[in-house]
This record gives sequence, structure tokens and C-alpha cells, in this order.
Amino acid sequence: MKLEKIAELVGGKLKGDGSLEISGIRDIEHAGAGHITFLSKKLFLELLNHSQASAVLAKEAVNTSVPQVIVASPELAFARLLREFHPEPQPKPGVHDRAVVGKNVKLGEQVTLSAGVCIGDDVEIADHVHLYPGVVVGDRCRIGSHTILHPNVTLYRNTELGSRVILHAGVVIGADGFGYTLDEKGAHYKINQIGRVVIEDDVEIGANSCVDRAAMGTTLIKQGTKIDNLVQVAHNCTVGEHSILVAQVGLAGSCTLGHHVVLAGQVGVADHVTLGDQVTLTAQSGTFRNIESHKVYGGHPAVPLGEWKKYVTVLPKLPELARKIRDLETRLNEIENNPSSR
Amino acid sequence: MKLEKIAELVGGKLKGDGSLEISGIRDIEHAGAGHITFLSKKLFLELLNHSQASAVLAKEAVNTSVPQVIVASPELAFARLLREFHPEPQPKPGVHDRAVVGKNVKLGEQVTLSAGVCIGDDVEIADHVHLYPGVVVGDRCRIGSHTILHPNVTLYRNTELGSRVILHAGVVIGADGFGYTLDEKGAHYKINQIGRVVIEDDVEIGANSCVDRAAMGTTLIKQGTKIDNLVQVAHNCTVGEHSILVAQVGLAGSCTLGHHVVLAGQVGVADHVTLGDQVTLTAQSGTFRNIESHKVYGGHPAVPLGEWKKYVTVLPKLPELARKIRDLETRLNEIENNPSSR
Amino acid sequence: MKLEKIAELVGGKLKGDGSLEISGIRDIEHAGAGHITFLSKKLFLELLNHSQASAVLAKEAVNTSVPQVIVASPELAFARLLREFHPEPQPKPGVHDRAVVGKNVKLGEQVTLSAGVCIGDDVEIADHVHLYPGVVVGDRCRIGSHTILHPNVTLYRNTELGSRVILHAGVVIGADGFGYTLDEKGAHYKINQIGRVVIEDDVEIGANSCVDRAAMGTTLIKQGTKIDNLVQVAHNCTVGEHSILVAQVGLAGSCTLGHHVVLAGQVGVADHVTLGDQVTLTAQSGTFRNIESHKVYGGHPAVPLGEWKKYVTVLPKLPELARKIRDLETRLNEIENNPSSR
Repeated sequence: MKLEKIAELVGGKLKGDGSLEISGIRDIEHAGAGHITFLSKKLFLELLNHSQASAVLAKEAVNTSVPQVIVASPELAFARLLREFHPEPQPKPGVHDRAVVGKNVKLGEQVTLSAGVCIGDDVEIADHVHLYPGVVVGDRCRIGSHTILHPNVTLYRNTELGSRVILHAGVVIGADGFGYTLDEKGAHYKINQIGRVVIEDDVEIGANSCVDRAAMGTTLIKQGTKIDNLVQVAHNCTVGEHSILVAQVGLAGSCTLGHHVVLAGQVGVADHVTLGDQVTLTAQSGTFRNIESHKVYGGHPAVPLGEWKKYVTVLPKLPELARKIRDLETRLNEIENNPSSR
Repeated sequence: MKLEKIAELVGGKLKGDGSLEISGIRDIEHAGAGHITFLSKKLFLELLNHSQASAVLAKEAVNTSVPQVIVASPELAFARLLREFHPEPQPKPGVHDRAVVGKNVKLGEQVTLSAGVCIGDDVEIADHVHLYPGVVVGDRCRIGSHTILHPNVTLYRNTELGSRVILHAGVVIGADGFGYTLDEKGAHYKINQIGRVVIEDDVEIGANSCVDRAAMGTTLIKQGTKIDNLVQVAHNCTVGEHSILVAQVGLAGSCTLGHHVVLAGQVGVADHVTLGDQVTLTAQSGTFRNIESHKVYGGHPAVPLGEWKKYVTVLPKLPELARKIRDLETRLNEIENNPSSR
Repeated sequence: MKLEKIAELVGGKLKGDGSLEISGIRDIEHAGAGHITFLSKKLFLELLNHSQASAVLAKEAVNTSVPQVIVASPELAFARLLREFHPEPQPKPGVHDRAVVGKNVKLGEQVTLSAGVCIGDDVEIADHVHLYPGVVVGDRCRIGSHTILHPNVTLYRNTELGSRVILHAGVVIGADGFGYTLDEKGAHYKINQIGRVVIEDDVEIGANSCVDRAAMGTTLIKQGTKIDNLVQVAHNCTVGEHSILVAQVGLAGSCTLGHHVVLAGQVGVADHVTLGDQVTLTAQSGTFRNIESHKVYGGHPAVPLGEWKKYVTVLPKLPELARKIRDLETRLNEIENNPSSR
């Protein structure tokens, strides 16, 4: 692809020879001759100049010998070009003869049902949906267009997925929420979970993650949210738009998250907690209190990140501080008991 | 269903018009006209009076205009009614022609083997068992009556499940315990795991959770225990009766838990630890020491919850406390060095 | 098996009657008549003498009435004997007629493809590979000899597995790394992940664990590493040889681990962190800093284990220490304000 075509594709300003032929796209670390790369920070300019890259996407013109395409977000332009050079593989649409389809199932155009797929009754599947082998879809599910379910994904009954949703292998959507009440004999009596899960457009969920269906009502993952692997979203949670839940995060029941929330790896949020818009929690932190919009918290129980960063530097000094306190007490006793000696 | 019939079903005392027709059941938040709801706390009375609910389950007579059913546990009565109004869907029993069944397999009455189910040799499956698509059952497993295995569950060989067990999608029972010993070259030499897993009656295990088989002997989940999603139970653990393991809990090898233990989300328990009866560990806590019965612990390493709650409020003040200690030292030095000035 | 034959098998020195017939092998806790067991520590000698064991593997001659086999590592000898007495079950090789195999697939000798296995196009499978039911192998994967994939394992396209690799049920290898960049509207724009996963010889990965494929290049698990259940390895990580990742560990993107690293349960490592050779992190700890070879760290943020052990004993005393500091201040104020009273 000619560089001028690339500049046009990413809406960038060309600086250099537009007729240059670009054969591929790589990050600075992997870029070779014929490749276009991108400069995320000026800091990496030296890396660029030591690479064999033939062109670069940059935020502003930089001091380099290779042609440049100037764009507002080089990383975004790079991601867009990746789809040109490395598009996701397209399946051959059709229903494999080893797929099993229930009664009253509506299939859109260009749907791919692979071998070993099992679809329940009264299911609606929109156009261009791709179900990989081993996917199991319960009764009365609805799946929006261009949605991809990777191998061995399970949708329990009544689940609703939007368009362009991606569920990675082993994801389980709509399993029973974890709800019990003690009976007269002290045994846990199961509370039937009669709600469902709704996952809006453009959500992606990583391998082996779980979203439980609501006790009543809906567990809701809003548009554009991205969830990593092995994440737990309990019943009746609402996760706002464009949020990020990194691997092994756990949300207890009935949490409400705003939009653009970021939960780093292994974060835990207690039940019924509300996190405002654009709240960030750092890795392994946990909160059982609500957090206001735009705040960044860390630790367990979570506190404003600045506080956490300060107090953790003191922790290793605690034994010494405790000793000093004992020492101060001794010395002060000495002074108080012997005023005359002074 | 008439309200008098409902009162009879839950063993409650009717207060109001028993001939009232109840069409459904909802929590206070979702209850509308025709619905019966329940009052978990008096606190919610106002919510009740603002709802359209037509009847209420309550612990004692409350000040409301709608008919009441007085029961010892309104929540339990509610859960029982849920099963009346929203029973779990019943499959059509039978062996799907896309199920694969090994040699010498004993199938009880009214068993459902869905498409894509694979059963090994010498397996016993009792009456009314329901295996969803993609379930894989290893050789010599035994499955008790009315047990439900959701899609893509795997039972390794020799696993034994009781009656009314529910395993959610993606659960793995009986994978090899994590046991190695170093060989002469510093490589990890696998210790074959020759034990098994036994899961007793009325246990429920959440999506993608794992229970490993014992190195020798048995990994045991006792009657009535409920395990949430993405939980890890390592080899040779024993989990006592009616315990609760919330999502993402991890038990290392050879732990022993008493009955009615409650481990909140993301708790970790080190290997060979014993937790007594009715021990509770709060979310994200971890213990590598035994804990006596009836104790509530938090933090990592876990301490009595009251202690944890107190010390965590001090943590953010640590930098200031450290400063104060330095200040006290300076002032005390001043006094000690200048006794005459006073 | 005669004891002299056992001594020969484990390269040990016989002390006692070599003609003794040994019928089985158990740990000290489970050993009965006819069994050989092993003594891991002298501490357990009494247990041995109270057991019915007929022979023992020991590091040095001990004071017991039963015949002994003296070996450098009794535990290793025990593990070797386990494989003699309890070999892993061998499948009947062949391609089940319910397996689905793509185009241009090369199958080695003695390969077992069970019912419900789905193999993509251009896949190479070496000799003696065993794929259990429900395994899904993407296009262009390569699987080395004697490798075992348990039920419902998913390999995304281009994954490469070495020889004698074991993947337990539900493992997902090669799912998309978690990579996005914000677009002009504040939505997360997916960065196509064009790399792959390579897993070297003798690696074992526990149930429902996930290893994501690289954004570019390779996510690499080196030879002999053992990974437990529910572990997350993000894109572009390199895990060195013979490392141990215990259950629920999470590695963020682009981590580099040396050889013989040990990460205990629920440990988290932040992105781009490097851990040297033989680094150990204790359970539930987390680091966002590099750690040098041979260090043992604990806590979050992780510090040298000795420091962590000391400061955590002070934590429960913090409220009292804070009180003492206040008290010291009061007393010091008193002295400073009333020099004449002394």
C-alpha cells in the first residue's frame, strides 16, 4: 500500500514521499524494512532511528530520515492500519452439519454456526454472527449482528447480546447469580434467579470470564466496555459505557459503575457499591465504599491513590517506628521522674 | 394463585383478604400490581408503601394497607414462592443422537443427555440427571439423582457427585492436583495424582470454578456447600457442610474447613490450614494460620475483624505519625541536651 | 513388584529383605500392609512406625523395623514409583467419527482425536498426542508429541505447543491480548493482536487458565514451567524455564520472568515488570517494580519477605501506637511549657 493511501486512510498529513510502498506494520521494536510504525512518545525517537522502519506515524513532525504521517493519535492510526494489513479472519458462512439448532430459531444473513454449536429454542441470531465450535446458546437468547462467540462460550437462557460483541473462549454469560437464604435447618436454600443479562454493542469479554444473570431484572454491561480474562461480574451489576475491567477483577452483587471506569487487575468491589464516572482503582485494590466520579483510588480498603502511595512507603519502617516510640517513652519517663537531676 | 393458598404454602399467618389473586412475585424494587413481595427489614416499609405490590411477606404485622402473610423468615418464604411461580425449566429426557456414551454406562430414569455430551466408560448416572451440551464425563464417574451439569462442564475420571448437585458452565472437577518434586536436574517432576473428588448432596458450584482431585485419597466438598464462580479448591481440601465460598476464592492444598464457613470474594487460604466451624473471612483477606470456630477475620495476614477495622483507619495517617515521631525526638533531644535552659 | 526391583528402579540402596513383594504405594497417612511409602522428614518417623507400611523410601537409614530403600530424594523416588504403580491411563488412538478435522491437517502416529474435537486448517499434530472431547484447535496450530489436551481446551490460531505439554480442561491459549486505544469519541478502539503463543516442552497448565497471544511477536512459556488453575498470563509475557505459577496468579502484559520463579497463589505482577531468576513472591503479594534474582518478596507493594513479616506484626498495634504518640506529645508539651515546675 502506498504511503499516500495510508495517510488518506488515517486522515493524516503526509511529510515525505507518498509513493513509497508500505508492505506491513509493526511496533518500533519489531519494525523492519518496508514497515510503517508509530511513535507513541518522543522518548522513543532514538529507537525509531535505530530501526529499519520505512515510515512512521507521529503526533508532530520529528527529526527522522523516514517519511512521516502526522496524526492526532498515532496509536489510533496504527490500530486502524492494523485492521487493513491484518484483518480478522473471515469464516465461511453456513451451518455446519454437526451444529444443532433448536425450534423456532431465526438466523440472519451470513451466519456461521460451526461444528459442535448447540442452539436452543426461540433464539434470534442477526446477520454476520460467527459462532465457533462448542458454543452453547440457551433458549430465547438474542445475538446482534457481527457478534463473535469464540469456542466453548455458554449463553444461559434469555441472554441478549448487542452488535459487534466479542466473547472469548470459555466465557459464561447468564449463569445463576449466587443467592441463597438459610432455611429452618440452617441449610442454604437457593433463590431462583429469574433475571437475565444484557450486553450492549461493542463489548468485548475475555476468556473464561463470567457475568451472572440478575436475581430479578437485568445484569447490564453497557456499550463499548471491555472486560479482560477471568473476571467475575455478579448478579444485578450495571457496568457503565466504555469501562475497562482488567483480568481477575471481581464485582460483587448489585454494583453500579459509571462510564469510563477503569479497574486494574485483581481489583475487588463489594456488593451494592457505586463507582462514579471515570473512577480508577489500581491493581489488587478493593473497596466496600462508594467512590465519587473522577477519583483514583488504591489499596484495601481503597483510599485516594496519593495517600496510599505515601503510607505504603512507611509500612516497612513500622518496626523501627514502634521501637522509637518505646524509646521516647523511656526517655520521657526518665525526665519526668528525675526533674531535679536536670 | 390465591393469597390464602400462598399463606398455606409458606406456612404463614394470613392478615387480610385471602381470596386475593396473586399473579407474580417480585422484590420490593420490582413489585407491581398483582405481585407479592417481601419485607426483609422494617427499614424498607416506606419502599413497600410506595410500591404497587398487592401483598407482602413479613416477619411481623406492619403498618401497610396491603394484605400480609406473617412468616418466620420472609426471605425464605419468598424463595419458596419463587420456585412456584418461576420453576427451573425442565428438559425433555432422553439421549440426543449427538451424545456419545461409553461402555458399561448405567443410565437412570428420565436422564437427559444433550447434544455434544461425551460419557466415558463404567459411568453411573442416576434418575433425573440433566447434562447440558458439551458436558464431558470421564471414566468411572458417578452422578447422583436430580443433578444438573450445565454446558461444557468437565468431570475427570472417578469423580463422584451426590444428588441435587448443580455445576455451572465451565466447571472442572477432578483435574490433576498441582504436585511436583524437583528432579536431579532442577526440573519439576510431576507427582501423579491418584486420588479423586467427592461432592456431596445439594452442593452448587459456580461457572468456571475448579476442584482438583486429591494426590491420594479424596478432595471433599460436603453437603449443602455453595461455591461461586472462578473459585479454586486445590487437592486434598475438605470443605465442611453448608459453607459459602464467594467468587474468586482460592484454597491451597490440604485445607480443612468446618461447617458454615463463609469466605468472601477473593479470599485466599494457604495450604494445610484449618478453619473451624462458622469461621468468616472478609473479602480479599488471606490466612496462612488456622482460625478457631466462630471467629470473623479480615486482612492479610488475617486478624480478628475488629482489629483490622481499627488499624486500617490508621494507615493513611502513617506518614503524619512518622513525622510526629521525628518531631518528638527532636524536641526530646533539645530537652535532654539543655537541662540548664529550663 | 519385589523391593529389590524397586530399589533398582529408583537407583536406591536396599536395606532389608529385597524379595519382599510390594503391592502398592501410598503416602505415610494412607499406607497400609504391602505398601511402600516415603519419609520426607525425620519428623515423620513416628508416623511411619505407627503405619502398616511394609517398606519405606528414606534419605538415610532410619530406626524402623521395615525394609528401607535409601535414595537422595525420597519424594522424587516416590513420584517415579507412582508412575509405575499408577500410570496415566492410555487412550485408544484413532480419530473418532464425531471429530471434525479441517483441510491440510498432518496427524502423527498414535494420535487420539476424541468425539467433539474440532481441528482447523493447516494444523500439525505430532505422534501420541491425545485430544479429549470438546477440544478446539484453531488454524495453523502445531502440537508436539505426547502432548495431552483435556476436555474443552481451546487453542486460538497459530498457537505452538511443544512435546509432553499438558493442558487441563477449559484452558484457553492464544485469545486476543487486552489492547485498546481511545478513538476520537472516547471509545476503546481494538488493537488487533497479530502475535501468537508458544508453549515449550514439558509445560503443564491447570484448568481454566488463560495465556493470551502477543499483540505482536510471541507470548512465551518456556520449558518445564508449571502453571496451576485459573491463572492469567497476558499478552507478550515471557515466563522462564521451570517456573511455578500457583492458582489465580495474574501477570499483566509484557512481564518477563526468569527461570525457577515461584509465584504463590493470587499473586499479581504489573505490566512490563521483570522478575529475575529464582524470584519468589508469597501468596497474595503484588509488585509493580522489578525484582532481582534470588529474592523472596511479600506484601503489596512487595518488599523483602523479612521486612513484610516484621511490619505486619505491628499493624494490629497501630491504633495503640497512635495513641501513645498523642500521649507523648501531651507530656512533652507539659514539660516544655512548665520548665519551672521541675
